[in-house]
Amino acid sequence: MEIEAFQQLMGDIYGERDGARGVAASVAWLTEEVGELARAARKGSVDEQRHELGDVLAWTASLANQLGVSLSAAAARYADGCPKCASTPCTCR
Amino acid sequence: MEIEAFQQLMGDIYGERDGARGVAASVAWLTEEVGELARAARKGSVDEQRHELGDVLAWTASLANQLGVSLSAAAARYADGCPKCASTPCTCR
Repeated sequence: MEIEAFQQLMGDIYGERDGARGVAASVAWLTEEVGELARAARKGSVDEQRHELGDVLAWTASLANQLGVSLSAAAARYADGCPKCASTPCTCR
Repeated sequence: MEIEAFQQLMGDIYGERDGARGVAASVAWLTEEVGELARAARKGSVDEQRHELGDVLAWTASLANQLGVSLSAAAARYADGCPKCASTPCTCR
């Protein structure tokens, strides 16, 4: 799936409800999901890890929608390698 | 850009270094970036918000690489609407 299509899908599914709660609520939910991902990464099954990775992706996209920012444009910063050292593989991180 | 291509790109750029540091370090970096995104969402410019959204996306993809999980498969859980109520728009979140 295209990053842009996924962001649009999150808008279609969650845009109205998430927008009504506002940016701060989406930041809180994203943080909660990152916590669940941290737990799954430490001791979860692959299915649980996939589930939580999807939730983090979904809340990141929903937050981007509320901010009016294109996730695809955000991802494009990496298209030519590491944005800091401009190489692949990165030599600075 | 395709989600799968972005994940592969993160592997090419950061895979070796991130893999050497391990999963816990990537969870820590992701959390740090979520904090920076929270700040940018509250009072940053659109450019800063785009930058931090990209960083969260990048660390999510790098963590997925280390866990051996496809982000594209994770995103596919939403393809038929909200996974919990199975509708678009969601009626349960």
